[in-house]
Amino acid sequence: MTKPIIFIQGNYRAEFIEKIKASATEYRVKTTLIDEDLEFVEISVGWDKKNEQQLLALSPLKWVQAISAGVDYLPLKEFEKKGILLTNASGLHSISISEHVIGVILSYYRGLNTAQKNQLAHTWDTDDIHYDQLSGKNMLVIGTGHIGEKLAKSVVSLGVNPFGINTTGHTVDGFIETYSMKNLAKIIQTMDIVVGILPGTDDTFHIFNNDLFSQMKPSAIFINVGRGDTVHTRELTETLQNKTIAFAALDVFEAEPLPADSPLWELDNLLITPHISGLTKHFQTKLMQIFLPNLTSFVKDGSLAKNQVSLKKGY
Amino acid sequence: MTKPIIFIQGNYRAEFIEKIKASATEYRVKTTLIDEDLEFVEISVGWDKKNEQQLLALSPLKWVQAISAGVDYLPLKEFEKKGILLTNASGLHSISISEHVIGVILSYYRGLNTAQKNQLAHTWDTDDIHYDQLSGKNMLVIGTGHIGEKLAKSVVSLGVNPFGINTTGHTVDGFIETYSMKNLAKIIQTMDIVVGILPGTDDTFHIFNNDLFSQMKPSAIFINVGRGDTVHTRELTETLQNKTIAFAALDVFEAEPLPADSPLWELDNLLITPHISGLTKHFQTKLMQIFLPNLTSFVKDGSLAKNQVSLKKGY
Repeated sequence: MTKPIIFIQGNYRAEFIEKIKASATEYRVKTTLIDEDLEFVEISVGWDKKNEQQLLALSPLKWVQAISAGVDYLPLKEFEKKGILLTNASGLHSISISEHVIGVILSYYRGLNTAQKNQLAHTWDTDDIHYDQLSGKNMLVIGTGHIGEKLAKSVVSLGVNPFGINTTGHTVDGFIETYSMKNLAKIIQTMDIVVGILPGTDDTFHIFNNDLFSQMKPSAIFINVGRGDTVHTRELTETLQNKTIAFAALDVFEAEPLPADSPLWELDNLLITPHISGLTKHFQTKLMQIFLPNLTSFVKDGSLAKNQVSLKKGY
Repeated sequence: MTKPIIFIQGNYRAEFIEKIKASATEYRVKTTLIDEDLEFVEISVGWDKKNEQQLLALSPLKWVQAISAGVDYLPLKEFEKKGILLTNASGLHSISISEHVIGVILSYYRGLNTAQKNQLAHTWDTDDIHYDQLSGKNMLVIGTGHIGEKLAKSVVSLGVNPFGINTTGHTVDGFIETYSMKNLAKIIQTMDIVVGILPGTDDTFHIFNNDLFSQMKPSAIFINVGRGDTVHTRELTETLQNKTIAFAALDVFEAEPLPADSPLWELDNLLITPHISGLTKHFQTKLMQIFLPNLTSFVKDGSLAKNQVSLKKGY
């Protein structure tokens, strides 16, 4: 009988390919496919729009290991219909994204953005430097998954007070207090720093809009490292143009790359980063810490040990 | 008898002026001086080159409260000769400078400097983004005073390993290990992040020079928030031009403002900030927490409760 295939999409190091082979001897491991392979692909590591239709139509897929935390770009309904299991890479980007968030906050609070603009113009100017103190600030983390929890724990020794928002308001390690989503508009009023780390779902679409921005302090700052479409871009643009809030940093956008004619490019009180907050050193090592235990478990009894995504919820 | 004068150089809030008056009823408090006042000035809060000669020549100065941590710009030898006591504002800038240091490190590690340059050009580009992980890095803090100790304690929850260097190698709270200055060239070899927080003295002049830079890892970064002349600017310039180390962030310079023709302006792997790391919210409140207890103690018996500077050592 021809062995089923684990299809590895991407350039993984030989040591990891060997480990995968050793963990699943009844599978063949392939990093490229020829047409004859398609009918044997049961497991895919990574997912690419380029071969999505082909794999869905022709392969007996049983399990997809995504290499991202968010999975809204995957055909979740198709997976559900076909009984394809999905695991994500949640947790893998926690340190990177936490460090990114703290970095963009301090860049603003310590006047580094302005200093760098002045540096590019070879200008020594202290008059236009804005500065503030991070220590003592209230931070609201909206979305208290792996990343949110890591962020809350990372700011402890910086003297920040981390509060959390999640669907039900259940307690999460690292937060002083967590609230349910329905309390968001009230809680946000007392916050200095508001961080969005939400997955893209029907419930979170455009959740960051005027109704919320208008409740924030004029000195407050907003950071989004979740999904781009959780932000109502036009309303945030107006909010920043009117300086209703002081500053924002966006790493994700409704359209990526950010279109050349986007008014966001022109805003002085916005830091734009090109979806880089998750860039992670030792990415493969960290991904394999999720995939390999899952593979062992899957081969044994078809179950997955960690990071399984609810296809209904989308996270 | 005409009362002696406390001369407050700077615009302090009325509430603080009132507190000063209440703490020292046998003094007059003045924020500007006329010629007839000069012979009565015993205490000065702040020090300004503009009236330095006049005060030294004509006033019976007993105590100067500096508003900075570093005091190398003060006429220490004159003070010593005349028996003028000196207190500094060390501690007051600890949070600000710690946050500044963490901010410039993360700006580099998370590619924010590059992202901002691209933003100014309205360019979405991920290819040239450098990124690294702060967590797990070794940080060497050279100068383990108030600021160094605060910095070491601030990076704990970020997963950084803080090591310290001071004159004798005495232990300091917050550091995993501290070493004496004579071990610097050896210890620096294993460090990812090197932070200079040294006062300007004969011993520290040009201490950061080629001998040290050449011992650092090629991936290492150097940050100076101490005194500008602790760095051999030309040798650091060459080090950065040759990429012997990866990145530097300077907040202080041998000449300030940094001259327009300085080659530092042209360096891609340097972040220049215009001596802003100490900018501090609630500055007056924090300064008064040093000055007022000292004033009470000085009025009582001529002693100073905290922050007295050794005029011999210069810190």
